[in-house]
Amino acid sequence: MRVGVLTGGGDCPGLNAVIRGVVRKGAQEYGYDFVGFRDGWRGPLENDTVRLDIPAVRGILPRGGTILGSSRTNPLKVSDGIRRIKDNLAKQEIQALIAIGGEDTLGVAARLSDEYGMPCVGVPKTIDNDLSATDYTFGFDTAVNIATEAIDRLHTTAESHMRVLVVEVMGRHAGWIALHSGLAGGANVILIPEQRFDVGQVCEWVTSRFRSSYAPIVVVAEGAMPKDGEMVLKDDSRDSFGHVRLSGVGEWLAKEIEKRTGKEARTTVLGHVQRGGTPSAFDRWLATRFGLHAIDCVHEGDFGRMVALRGTDIVRVPLTEATARLKTVDPKLYQEAGVFFG
Amino acid sequence: MRVGVLTGGGDCPGLNAVIRGVVRKGAQEYGYDFVGFRDGWRGPLENDTVRLDIPAVRGILPRGGTILGSSRTNPLKVSDGIRRIKDNLAKQEIQALIAIGGEDTLGVAARLSDEYGMPCVGVPKTIDNDLSATDYTFGFDTAVNIATEAIDRLHTTAESHMRVLVVEVMGRHAGWIALHSGLAGGANVILIPEQRFDVGQVCEWVTSRFRSSYAPIVVVAEGAMPKDGEMVLKDDSRDSFGHVRLSGVGEWLAKEIEKRTGKEARTTVLGHVQRGGTPSAFDRWLATRFGLHAIDCVHEGDFGRMVALRGTDIVRVPLTEATARLKTVDPKLYQEAGVFFG
Amino acid sequence: MRVGVLTGGGDCPGLNAVIRGVVRKGAQEYGYDFVGFRDGWRGPLENDTVRLDIPAVRGILPRGGTILGSSRTNPLKVSDGIRRIKDNLAKQEIQALIAIGGEDTLGVAARLSDEYGMPCVGVPKTIDNDLSATDYTFGFDTAVNIATEAIDRLHTTAESHMRVLVVEVMGRHAGWIALHSGLAGGANVILIPEQRFDVGQVCEWVTSRFRSSYAPIVVVAEGAMPKDGEMVLKDDSRDSFGHVRLSGVGEWLAKEIEKRTGKEARTTVLGHVQRGGTPSAFDRWLATRFGLHAIDCVHEGDFGRMVALRGTDIVRVPLTEATARLKTVDPKLYQEAGVFFG
Amino acid sequence: MRVGVLTGGGDCPGLNAVIRGVVRKGAQEYGYDFVGFRDGWRGPLENDTVRLDIPAVRGILPRGGTILGSSRTNPLKVSDGIRRIKDNLAKQEIQALIAIGGEDTLGVAARLSDEYGMPCVGVPKTIDNDLSATDYTFGFDTAVNIATEAIDRLHTTAESHMRVLVVEVMGRHAGWIALHSGLAGGANVILIPEQRFDVGQVCEWVTSRFRSSYAPIVVVAEGAMPKDGEMVLKDDSRDSFGHVRLSGVGEWLAKEIEKRTGKEARTTVLGHVQRGGTPSAFDRWLATRFGLHAIDCVHEGDFGRMVALRGTDIVRVPLTEATARLKTVDPKLYQEAGVFFG
Repeated sequence: MRVGVLTGGGDCPGLNAVIRGVVRKGAQEYGYDFVGFRDGWRGPLENDTVRLDIPAVRGILPRGGTILGSSRTNPLKVSDGIRRIKDNLAKQEIQALIAIGGEDTLGVAARLSDEYGMPCVGVPKTIDNDLSATDYTFGFDTAVNIATEAIDRLHTTAESHMRVLVVEVMGRHAGWIALHSGLAGGANVILIPEQRFDVGQVCEWVTSRFRSSYAPIVVVAEGAMPKDGEMVLKDDSRDSFGHVRLSGVGEWLAKEIEKRTGKEARTTVLGHVQRGGTPSAFDRWLATRFGLHAIDCVHEGDFGRMVALRGTDIVRVPLTEATARLKTVDPKLYQEAGVFFG
Repeated sequence: MRVGVLTGGGDCPGLNAVIRGVVRKGAQEYGYDFVGFRDGWRGPLENDTVRLDIPAVRGILPRGGTILGSSRTNPLKVSDGIRRIKDNLAKQEIQALIAIGGEDTLGVAARLSDEYGMPCVGVPKTIDNDLSATDYTFGFDTAVNIATEAIDRLHTTAESHMRVLVVEVMGRHAGWIALHSGLAGGANVILIPEQRFDVGQVCEWVTSRFRSSYAPIVVVAEGAMPKDGEMVLKDDSRDSFGHVRLSGVGEWLAKEIEKRTGKEARTTVLGHVQRGGTPSAFDRWLATRFGLHAIDCVHEGDFGRMVALRGTDIVRVPLTEATARLKTVDPKLYQEAGVFFG
Repeated sequence: MRVGVLTGGGDCPGLNAVIRGVVRKGAQEYGYDFVGFRDGWRGPLENDTVRLDIPAVRGILPRGGTILGSSRTNPLKVSDGIRRIKDNLAKQEIQALIAIGGEDTLGVAARLSDEYGMPCVGVPKTIDNDLSATDYTFGFDTAVNIATEAIDRLHTTAESHMRVLVVEVMGRHAGWIALHSGLAGGANVILIPEQRFDVGQVCEWVTSRFRSSYAPIVVVAEGAMPKDGEMVLKDDSRDSFGHVRLSGVGEWLAKEIEKRTGKEARTTVLGHVQRGGTPSAFDRWLATRFGLHAIDCVHEGDFGRMVALRGTDIVRVPLTEATARLKTVDPKLYQEAGVFFG
Repeated sequence: MRVGVLTGGGDCPGLNAVIRGVVRKGAQEYGYDFVGFRDGWRGPLENDTVRLDIPAVRGILPRGGTILGSSRTNPLKVSDGIRRIKDNLAKQEIQALIAIGGEDTLGVAARLSDEYGMPCVGVPKTIDNDLSATDYTFGFDTAVNIATEAIDRLHTTAESHMRVLVVEVMGRHAGWIALHSGLAGGANVILIPEQRFDVGQVCEWVTSRFRSSYAPIVVVAEGAMPKDGEMVLKDDSRDSFGHVRLSGVGEWLAKEIEKRTGKEARTTVLGHVQRGGTPSAFDRWLATRFGLHAIDCVHEGDFGRMVALRGTDIVRVPLTEATARLKTVDPKLYQEAGVFFG
């Protein structure tokens, strides 16, 4: 059996752990051969491969990034993309494909599987943890740990100077990183994309915190928006390739708070630091197990499936579920955290 | 309403986060007063209390240990213990008691609740994660992170010197810390209390690892035992108070490996480092939520209960479940990890 | 003897370690009493004090920030400021004053000492390490460690996506943090305020790095400037209080690189994260020793002096040296690092 | 020019950074070729080499250990050792040799240089920091950071249980790690090899600490010895190869403290964790600069020299100085720390 592996989409701590899990078990227990495709779907599209065997995966467990490279190439948007992939997989004599990635990457795998009968298994990857089919995705715990450590550090600066510190964390559509790191870091305000915020209310919390002689930390997800659409995006809200950049809410909010409360406010945008580097122990464990179970799917011929975490078990769900529904923060959970606001 | 709070048993990162969650929500949302009892059950036994209000819990979230102190005092073993506790709680006008602790601490709470009608709520605490009623206990993730970081560091020494490094981690009756840190750290052998190990097999794995020009890391839980009872406990296997010290398996194993394989072997016993200091983000989040839900139990008059984690939800289970069954490592899980041995 | 202590200027890991060193030795060995002044020079200006004795300094060694609070209040700019300070110090019966702070704070101490005969001892504090009288200042090592860890993490994202990552670190007038963290993090370009940079040259380094199939990390000090004054400050380059914000060079540079090389570039501004939180071991050691030697100065009546590090020794220099000359990066040192560019 | 490089002796964070500095500058600026010798002096003794060029040193900066491997092979103790080395270096057409190592490794280099005219340059390496020719050696700062973090964690356990915690750190002949980590971690007793300790005095400090309602942390260097030679070495004080193991003082001391004070005491032996894994920023900076200056020595034909740190400068000293004198802790420095004891 010859199995292809690819990683697509944004960087995420744990990708290498998945690859290692797949290859160690596949090669050792099932005697499979592996072909690594480079840079997500660009690999099978352009027949760009990399050697993938046990020596290739030695020592990669603690390393961030992915030894296979990644890209956002979407073959559905490339003329004749799917056919070229089928041809190249045939050329490489690939009998099963393991795709590790987010909504986009797995969406392609689902179509390849459903419509073209290509034997695919998916491994979910989103640092934002916003996938409804699984309790957690790998990378999320690492991101939350990094954001929490940053918040820990910012507390002392806030206190020493009696300033407001606004921390912008990742999360375009879901506030999981903001909620978890805000709770773990002892933030005084947490703002998430799921619920438009009222700047007046934020300023009240800020002021109330100062009244107890402490300085407030405001954690805001990059996708959080004010209630009245009053936030003006910066001129540079599109990057050089024309994509909208959502960043800016942190800086905007700090200025509003300064204006309305008269207190000094500063912003820290954690950015890419949250998604790189060595994975936390939890993420290594989860990613490793995802890898082991993905190759088991292949071994059992259980295709069109995605591995997922439920409680402490690894389960299998249809690949199509991967893209079905965004898992956003439950309003009750957000309300639960509200006791710490102000 | 006047609520008592105590923490019993061994140190565990997250205790302060629970206390803070209880007091913040209880005082702010429900208007309760709190009394902290010092050093676990010794507090109510000797009527030794400490002030516990919102200022008292400020800034404690990231700190290890417990502001209430802890002890292993068991009132069931003290003459007239339960009656004295009842009297002291009455003196303090305590209407509900939140006990945060392990099997022993919660066992007392269960009896107080069941047999004496004292309104108790339990919060489970075991760094070993060996409690069947909950997916995870707080403190465990921190311990696994610390052990994993140590294993990461030991890899380079093992490689540079082509030595065997044996790492002894916590876990007297259950191998969760060994299993998780071993998987996350890329250990080449993992030994747990649930399954007696065969020294010959361990030496084979060690030898096979050297054959691929890498040096092996052996992770062993302190409670792991060899198959044939061949391990001789050290003379100093009892501490000055006569308690058996289980430590020693790591050092014993290193010597056996040296003797049998002719390779140098060294042992590192992580010990107390695993249970102290600032909690990981996951443990702060879990402990905080346990605290919030424990005080909700009190508010709803739902006594004789313990909070627990199931998937991503906090649920309630009977306090008696806390002590009912040890959660040991499932043989299937251990076997799953076996693909990385050798 | 009654000794006043104050901390002025920006937050810096190690302030509490200095305070603890001063008080532990002063109270224990010399039997002194201490008065803490709150928020830098605002304290003696407004006679705002805080208790400062051995119990007050217990447990503060590992904590960031300062238990005395800080501010940028400059009594030289306050009408009648110096006289009010003299009066308040007299009221408090202060016989010696230990001022911990940067150029501004120590400048006031120098004038108080020289012109008004007030017995002052200074402890230098600048996270930027730009003080010529001492080999290192505390806080710097912590900042460099934090920046280096961030660069480590960003490498994997850069590699996985073949993107340029620009990291803006602290350093308005001196590039020490950029130089040390850039060297330690394996940056491919390091830009410092001491030497105006040529964007064309930066782009050549970036391109050359991509040619060897690696993605570049550019570390830029916040005070670095392009050669031709071509950098346009953002509209929001003044904060709400009218102070110029120097931030922006990182974002500006990323856009220039995108425009000129056609490669995607992203910026991370580390900001306040670099100056908060628990100090590194080196900074705790240095700050503690500074504290011990500062109180020795008081004990020996050696006033108008500042403690400083030379090699591994703590020495004393005139307080006026503290403000005499900025220690910028030696061009030779910068050139030495150049072997890693590109 | 063809340059040989080898690393000898114990593992030490920063070895790879030295190698990278040597090769990057040597290959890029001076156009040299490099030959890596495997496992210290075993490499040239047995003509065992490894490729060493710019691609080989990419990405190794943050990694612990050494890509060249290490051993304690001493060619002076091997019959005809020096001649075999000379022959093999000639075979490989080596014109200069850079030896990175401790007393033993550099001692061989000194003899090769002095007596046999072999062009050698040395880079000092000792995690114990006990080399008189240099202010600091790389690896030391990392070890101190790791020990300090462990002490931070142990404080909370000590406090929660009111126990004595004894931490045994590295340092056979010099107490630098104990002194620095003890100061940085806020230890209550620090014991070093340079000064035999009085157990009675230690117990007094321990008791005095308990009297202020805090629990003591005792940091003891592995080479520290009691005054009256009363410490009985364990039966297993020799390893399987007959070498004396100095370990044991920590455990011995904990038992003495328990016996004499009646307080519970526990020991943590940090062991190899201190010498492995990723180097701190300071160590990466120092090791990188050592590498750059070592290759400059070669370039300038300045052989028989060792690079060293003085203040913030890298200087050169005769190779023979490397082995001349052990740098032990100055009694004055130890006394300075004494203010924190008890």
